[in-house]
Amino acid sequence: MAERKNEKFRNKVYSIVFESDTRPGRLFDLILLWLILLSIISVFLESVASFREKYIAAIHIIEWTFTILFTLEYALRIYSSKKPLSYIFSFYGLIDLISFIPNYLSIFFPGAQYLMVIRALRLLRVFRILKLSRFINEGNILKDALKASMHKITVFLASVITMVTIIGTLMYIIEGEESGFTNIPVAIYWAIVTITTVGYGDISPQSPLGQFLASILMITGYGIIAVPTGIVTVAMAKATEESKEKCPECSSPIYPSKANFCSNCGKELHPKA
Amino acid sequence: MAERKNEKFRNKVYSIVFESDTRPGRLFDLILLWLILLSIISVFLESVASFREKYIAAIHIIEWTFTILFTLEYALRIYSSKKPLSYIFSFYGLIDLISFIPNYLSIFFPGAQYLMVIRALRLLRVFRILKLSRFINEGNILKDALKASMHKITVFLASVITMVTIIGTLMYIIEGEESGFTNIPVAIYWAIVTITTVGYGDISPQSPLGQFLASILMITGYGIIAVPTGIVTVAMAKATEESKEKCPECSSPIYPSKANFCSNCGKELHPKA
Amino acid sequence: MAERKNEKFRNKVYSIVFESDTRPGRLFDLILLWLILLSIISVFLESVASFREKYIAAIHIIEWTFTILFTLEYALRIYSSKKPLSYIFSFYGLIDLISFIPNYLSIFFPGAQYLMVIRALRLLRVFRILKLSRFINEGNILKDALKASMHKITVFLASVITMVTIIGTLMYIIEGEESGFTNIPVAIYWAIVTITTVGYGDISPQSPLGQFLASILMITGYGIIAVPTGIVTVAMAKATEESKEKCPECSSPIYPSKANFCSNCGKELHPKA
Amino acid sequence: MAERKNEKFRNKVYSIVFESDTRPGRLFDLILLWLILLSIISVFLESVASFREKYIAAIHIIEWTFTILFTLEYALRIYSSKKPLSYIFSFYGLIDLISFIPNYLSIFFPGAQYLMVIRALRLLRVFRILKLSRFINEGNILKDALKASMHKITVFLASVITMVTIIGTLMYIIEGEESGFTNIPVAIYWAIVTITTVGYGDISPQSPLGQFLASILMITGYGIIAVPTGIVTVAMAKATEESKEKCPECSSPIYPSKANFCSNCGKELHPKA
Repeated sequence: MAERKNEKFRNKVYSIVFESDTRPGRLFDLILLWLILLSIISVFLESVASFREKYIAAIHIIEWTFTILFTLEYALRIYSSKKPLSYIFSFYGLIDLISFIPNYLSIFFPGAQYLMVIRALRLLRVFRILKLSRFINEGNILKDALKASMHKITVFLASVITMVTIIGTLMYIIEGEESGFTNIPVAIYWAIVTITTVGYGDISPQSPLGQFLASILMITGYGIIAVPTGIVTVAMAKATEESKEKCPECSSPIYPSKANFCSNCGKELHPKA
Repeated sequence: MAERKNEKFRNKVYSIVFESDTRPGRLFDLILLWLILLSIISVFLESVASFREKYIAAIHIIEWTFTILFTLEYALRIYSSKKPLSYIFSFYGLIDLISFIPNYLSIFFPGAQYLMVIRALRLLRVFRILKLSRFINEGNILKDALKASMHKITVFLASVITMVTIIGTLMYIIEGEESGFTNIPVAIYWAIVTITTVGYGDISPQSPLGQFLASILMITGYGIIAVPTGIVTVAMAKATEESKEKCPECSSPIYPSKANFCSNCGKELHPKA
Repeated sequence: MAERKNEKFRNKVYSIVFESDTRPGRLFDLILLWLILLSIISVFLESVASFREKYIAAIHIIEWTFTILFTLEYALRIYSSKKPLSYIFSFYGLIDLISFIPNYLSIFFPGAQYLMVIRALRLLRVFRILKLSRFINEGNILKDALKASMHKITVFLASVITMVTIIGTLMYIIEGEESGFTNIPVAIYWAIVTITTVGYGDISPQSPLGQFLASILMITGYGIIAVPTGIVTVAMAKATEESKEKCPECSSPIYPSKANFCSNCGKELHPKA
Repeated sequence: MAERKNEKFRNKVYSIVFESDTRPGRLFDLILLWLILLSIISVFLESVASFREKYIAAIHIIEWTFTILFTLEYALRIYSSKKPLSYIFSFYGLIDLISFIPNYLSIFFPGAQYLMVIRALRLLRVFRILKLSRFINEGNILKDALKASMHKITVFLASVITMVTIIGTLMYIIEGEESGFTNIPVAIYWAIVTITTVGYGDISPQSPLGQFLASILMITGYGIIAVPTGIVTVAMAKATEESKEKCPECSSPIYPSKANFCSNCGKELHPKA
C-alpha cells in the first residue's frame, strides 16, 4: 500500500519535473528557466574583476544557493525517473550533472566554477517548455538538412584542412619567424584565420611573395564558402519539400502549399462541408 | 457651413501631407525628402570637430530651422489625420516624432541632437513616394521570405548564442586576462567577433590551446553561415514562386514565366486577339 | 576610284582592329592583349619606390612607347569606324581613350599616369577575342540574374544604409571620440566595416555597451548576408532555367537536360537516324 | 617458371600496395595512414623553435626513418605497377615522390624538409582506403558541381580581379604611402583583403575619401559573395538531381526520393514481392 502511494507520488514528481503539460509542470519549467538565466548572469558577473573584488561574498552565497537547488533538482530527476541510468547517461542528463558539478570542483580547483556556463545548454530545453511545436518542427528540418549534408561537408572539410596545412607550411618557409609565423602550427592557424575570412591581423604577411600567396588563399576562401552554402541550401530545399503537408489520398506532397486539389491524384483538399 | 469648409480644407491638407497622387502631394513629398537628407548631413557635419568649432552658429541656425519645419509638418499631420491617435502611435508616426524631439532635448542634454539621424528611417518612405510598385512588390517578397524564415532563424540564433557563451567562457579560462580576455562577457564578445568572421583582432588568442579552440570556432562560423543562407534562399524561392502570375482559369502559378498555355489546365494565356 | 580603294582599305583596317575572325585580326588582338598586360605591369613597377628610383628613365621610355602605341591604335579605330562618334562615346571607346590620356595629363599633374591601370578594363575584351561563346553565354546568365535581382538588392541596400547610419550614430554617442569614433561619418564607416564582416580593427568599441551594440550589428550582418545570396541564387536558378535548350516542337525547356523525350509534348529529342 | 613465380609475387605486392580489398592490403593502407600522420606531426614539431633546440637529434632520426620507409614504399609501387611510367606521372605518383624528396634536398638546402607536409595530400587517399563509396559519390557530386560552375566562376573572378586592380590604384593615389599604401601591388593586396571581407587591418584607409571608397568596396564585396554562392548552389542542385536514383523503366529521375511510383511512366518502384 505504502509502495503504491510512493509510486503515485513518484509519478506526480515525474510529471512536474520532466513534463510540462500540467500547470505545476509548466510552472516548474518556467522557474527553472529563470534560475538558469540568473545563475549564468551571476557567473558572468563573478568574472568581472571590479565586481568580484567588491561583492565576492554575495556572489559566493548566490552561486552556492543555485548549486544546491540544481543538485536537489538533479536528485529529484533521478528519483522520479523510471529508468534512472538511462536518464543519467542521456544528453540532457549529462548536461544537468555538468551544470552544478563545477562549483563543487571549484573548492579544489579555483576557476572551475566558470564551467557552470555549460548550463546554458539547458536553456535549449526552452523550446520544449514553450511547447512550440512549430519551433521543434523547424529545428528538425534544420537537423535533417545538416545530417543529409554531413558526408559532403566532411569531404569539404578534409579538403580545406589539407589546403591550410600545405599553404600554412609554405607561408612558414616564405615569411619566417620575423613576420610572426613562428612555427608551422601557428602558420596553419593563420591560414585558417585567413581562409575563413576572419582576418584578425595579429599575424599578417610582410613580403610581396607572402602577400601574393595570401591573396590566393583569400580569394579561394571567398569562393569556396559557396560550397557549404550550396550543400546546405540544396539539402534544406529537400528537407522542406519532404516535410510538406501530404495528400491524405495518395500521400504525395501538396504543391503549391495552398492548393485546392492534389496535383497528383486530384483529390479535393479543403471540401467546404 | 464653416465646419464643412474646414472639413474640406482638412481633406486637402491630408491629400498633400499623407498622399502623393496629386501634384502638390508629390511636390510636398519631394521637398520633404530633400529636407530630411539635408538635415541628416547637417547633423553629420556638426559631429566633425573641426567643422563644429568653426561654424557652430550656422549649424545651430540650420538645425533649429529644420526642427521647426518638421514640428510644423508633424502638427499638420495630426491636424489633418482622421484618427490622430492611430497616426501618433503608428510606426511612421513615432518616427516622425523622434525625428525632431532630440533637438528640443539637446537644450537640457547636450549631444541628444545626434539622435536626429533616426529621421533617416523616414527616407524609407521614398519607396512609397516614388510610387515604384515594383519596389514595394519586391520588398514584400523579401519581407515574406524573412517572415517565413523567422522560426528557423530563431532556432539557429539560439544555438549560436549558446555556443558563443560556452566557447567564450572556455577561452576566458584558457587565455585569461593577460591575453585581453578580461572577463566572460568580453570573451563572449570575442567569440561573436570570431564566429561572424568579423575578426577585429583587438583581442586574439595567444596560447596554442586558445588558437586551436579559436580555429574550431572559425571553421564552425565559416560552415554555419550556410544555415541562414540556406533558410532564406529556400524561403525566397517559395515566396517568388507564390508571387508569380496566376492562370486566370485555374489560378495555378504559370510556369515557365512566358508560357503560352497554362501547364495545369491548358488555357491559352496570350490569345492573339 | 581612289575613294573606293580607300574604302576597301578602311574596311580591311576595320576587320583587323575591331574584329577577330581573320588571322591578322586575331593576331592584332593577341598583341594588344600582351601590350596592355605589359603596360599595366610597368605602371605597377613605377609605383614601387625602390624600383622607381633606380630605373626612372627606362620606365618613362617604356610608358611613353605604350602610350604612343595606344594613341595610334585609338586613331586607327576612329579612322576605320563607320560611325566614329558612336564608337568614341561607346563604353569601350571611352575606356580606350582613358587608357592613354593619363600619361599626357601626367606632364601637368604628376601622379596622373597611375590612372592608366584603367586600361585593365580593356582586358575584359579578352572574352570576345578568345571567341569563347561559352564564356559569353555564362556571362550573360550572370548579367541576367543580376539585372533581375536589381530591385530587390536596391531595397536591401537602402535598408542596410539606413541601419548603419543609425547604429553608427548611436556608437558615436556611446563610445565617443576617445575610442576612435571621432565623428558620425567615421562611426558609419566603422558600422560598414562591421556589418560586412570585414572588421579591420582600426576602430573598435571599448565600453561594454558599445561591445554589446557591436555584437548585435555583427550577428545582424552575419544573418542578412543570406538576403543577397538568396536573391541572386533564386534569380540565377531562373536565368539558368530559361537559358536551357528548348524543345524544337513546343519550345518548352527540356528537363532533365539529357532527356530523350520532351516532358511537355512527348517529342523524341535525339532520334537515332 | 621463375618468371611466372616472380609475376605472381608482383601481383601479390600490387594487391597489397595499391588495393585495399584484401586483409593485408587494408592493413598496409591503415599503417601507411598512421605513418603519414605521425610524420606530419614530426615536421610540425621540428618547426617549433623550443622543441627543435631540445630534441633535434631525435627529430632527425624519426624523419629519416619515415623518409626511408616512404622511399621503400615508392620503390615497391614502381616495382609492382604494371605500367610504372603511368604511375610515376599520375597525380598520386607525383605526390608520393614529393612526399619524401624534400628530406633528401634538405641536406643541400636546409629548410626544404618542411615541404614534406605536402604528403598531407596523400591523406586524401583515406576516402579510397575506407571504401566509403558514399563519400566518393558525394565527392563526385561536389566535383561535378564545381566543374559545371567553372566558366561562370572564371568570368566572375576576371571581373573581381579587374575591380581590385582599379580600386587598389585609386586608393594608392588617394591615400599615398604614409597610410601604408606603399605601392600599387600592396594597394591591390589591400583591396583583395577588403573585398573578400578578410580585413586584417594591417593597412587601412585614413582619409575621409579613402574610407568612403573602402566602404563602397566592402559593400560590393559583401554583395557579390552572393554570386559564386548562387552559381555553386544552382550547379549543386542540378548535380544532385542528376545523381538521383533513376526509374528502371523510363530512366527519368525518381521524385520525391521515396516515391512508390515513377512520376513519369507510373511504374511501381518497390513491389512487395
